Amino acid sequence: MHPTELSVDPTAAVEAVLTGELAQLRAEVVTIDPRLADDVDRLIGYICAGGKRLRPQFLCWGFLAANPDAERFAGGPELPLGVLKAAASLELIQACALIHDDIIDHSDTRRGQPSMHRRVQTVHSDQGWSGDAEHYGSSAALLLGDLALAWADDLFVDGARELGLPTEALLAWRSMRTEVLSGQLLDLRISADQSADPDQAADDAMVVNRYKTAAYTVERPLHLGAALAGAAAGTVDALREYGAAIGIGFQLRDDLLGVFGDPAVTGKPAGGDLIEGKRTVLLAMARSALQTHPELLTELDEHLGADLEPAQVARLTAMVAATSAPADIEARIAALFAIGMNALTQLDDAGRAVVHPVAADNLRRLAKASVARDR
Amino acid sequence: MHPTELSVDPTAAVEAVLTGELAQLRAEVVTIDPRLADDVDRLIGYICAGGKRLRPQFLCWGFLAANPDAERFAGGPELPLGVLKAAASLELIQACALIHDDIIDHSDTRRGQPSMHRRVQTVHSDQGWSGDAEHYGSSAALLLGDLALAWADDLFVDGARELGLPTEALLAWRSMRTEVLSGQLLDLRISADQSADPDQAADDAMVVNRYKTAAYTVERPLHLGAALAGAAAGTVDALREYGAAIGIGFQLRDDLLGVFGDPAVTGKPAGGDLIEGKRTVLLAMARSALQTHPELLTELDEHLGADLEPAQVARLTAMVAATSAPADIEARIAALFAIGMNALTQLDDAGRAVVHPVAADNLRRLAKASVARDR
Repeated sequence: MHPTELSVDPTAAVEAVLTGELAQLRAEVVTIDPRLADDVDRLIGYICAGGKRLRPQFLCWGFLAANPDAERFAGGPELPLGVLKAAASLELIQACALIHDDIIDHSDTRRGQPSMHRRVQTVHSDQGWSGDAEHYGSSAALLLGDLALAWADDLFVDGARELGLPTEALLAWRSMRTEVLSGQLLDLRISADQSADPDQAADDAMVVNRYKTAAYTVERPLHLGAALAGAAAGTVDALREYGAAIGIGFQLRDDLLGVFGDPAVTGKPAGGDLIEGKRTVLLAMARSALQTHPELLTELDEHLGADLEPAQVARLTAMVAATSAPADIEARIAALFAIGMNALTQLDDAGRAVVHPVAADNLRRLAKASVARDR
Repeated sequence: MHPTELSVDPTAAVEAVLTGELAQLRAEVVTIDPRLADDVDRLIGYICAGGKRLRPQFLCWGFLAANPDAERFAGGPELPLGVLKAAASLELIQACALIHDDIIDHSDTRRGQPSMHRRVQTVHSDQGWSGDAEHYGSSAALLLGDLALAWADDLFVDGARELGLPTEALLAWRSMRTEVLSGQLLDLRISADQSADPDQAADDAMVVNRYKTAAYTVERPLHLGAALAGAAAGTVDALREYGAAIGIGFQLRDDLLGVFGDPAVTGKPAGGDLIEGKRTVLLAMARSALQTHPELLTELDEHLGADLEPAQVARLTAMVAATSAPADIEARIAALFAIGMNALTQLDDAGRAVVHPVAADNLRRLAKASVARDR
């Protein structure tokens, strides 16, 4: 078989597995009490409507990149069911992370739709139930996020078991969840304790990026896929090197989109990160650059995270645009992309590790889609 | 070996495994960022300080009850490490459930200490960090609960793997977490939607009991232990029958303690369930009984869940005590205890299932400790 015939797009197959699993879990919940159908349908709708399915793709390509028998799995549906389950489980982790993050950040929207806690809050208000609708929304969303987290574990272990439950995969799974939750905790802590100087703030934001997003978006999904394939250590290392670079690049692109993104494309409000007062690397670097203009820095700090009028958002956006930060971030993204490509070249080099050339091609494509996107 | 020599108290061995695992997880978190040491220490302190370790005991006794080689494990420390890990993981599930429940219920205390979100809130205030201290406390507690849930899964799977990862054990693990979270969701929903008549309310409270507490306190821990031992279906059924009865009895005792318990012993405020307005079976039955005294029912309903003075708590407590509800609950507990004992007798009957007689003795002891306790 010629390498170009290995044109797997795992997304549809992952989607099918995810849908089937959720239908089964729904049945279990409804058996407990039929009144829970609405809540669980809300969770399923949230999971199934959403996102680019980047994490499952990285897991599947990690598996294929590291698998000497990759050609056996050509054509998508032939990927082992265990891989598809493990890939689908990442969407459940993601659902928990987003639902809980939106509670913490008081976010009203996600992917152009109301955030989960706002959806439930609306149901409470519409039904005229007793108690505080906002707290009810947060509470139900908290529990729905917990369900997604528990189900993610069930699905991952179920999938990994079909592949012999490699120890390396279990360790990567454990690290991934500890990392993303630690990253969220650190983000919370850093946002509250703003005593650090602006340069320290940029370093802090990078640590948060690395663990809160980058690790579980690219590096660990690839690591999981490779570990499930029983990859050699050299292959895992090269894939993780690629993953760490592209994952951070992904998040830095997110920082730029959070200030300069087109709301019609991103599904998020214009200047969303300014309104939320998010402690991103971009904003830390902009604040650092504005130290030479103390009055502007003061103005920015006073408005970040406040309830801003569109004109104020536009003014703050222009202020950030006028600093060196956006160009610096673009340069960092370009450098990270180059590191990622270089790691793939090492992968191509059979002296270090064997990887299927079509998998490498697809990882190049995914890298571009991660760091050069508009939503 | 004579049966009475099988005098295993697994608590200390479970405790040692739990402490060791948490130390390792702490190290992983602190490697991500040393500033997270405080948060993770708060979580570890919470887990290690707490509780009667009932769930791990039930898991260990389920394993021993169902294990034809039970005598091999005499003396506690000789229980297989996999069983101790699985048992310890239940304390992490419990930590997540309590931390998240206390956020949802706005509870200030737990086990006589501040609840997790209040502990973190105090740190925020003491440090003079920016933003809303109460929301910060809830947010950090939410994430610490998530960490406990993720770590519970890691530890359970790790332990179960050492015992060959029986499918039955994975299915019980999955059901347990879905049940407890569904029970919490249902509790939330029922508390908000109070359109149901008082008789329906008592049935609702029983469903919440069964899933939110009973299943994961007794029935599923026993089921997990038995499944990890590769128990025959008849043994599992009898243990679950015992577990369902004793678990519901445990929760009904909790209902009584929540109104009539001695604060000095329970570590909870006097009449705590009245102050929280908890929709317990006891209170549903009391409301049902008070339908013949509409003015008292109105007074109770108006005060449940409100900020009550001690004198008001005493008055409501007396009102509940004067109904037939407490005696009815005691009668139900006695009936459930009898069902549990009967299930154990079936277990003793080698015609249905083989169980070690000392395990049966200990399950009788634990049943008493569950339904006839004062804290």
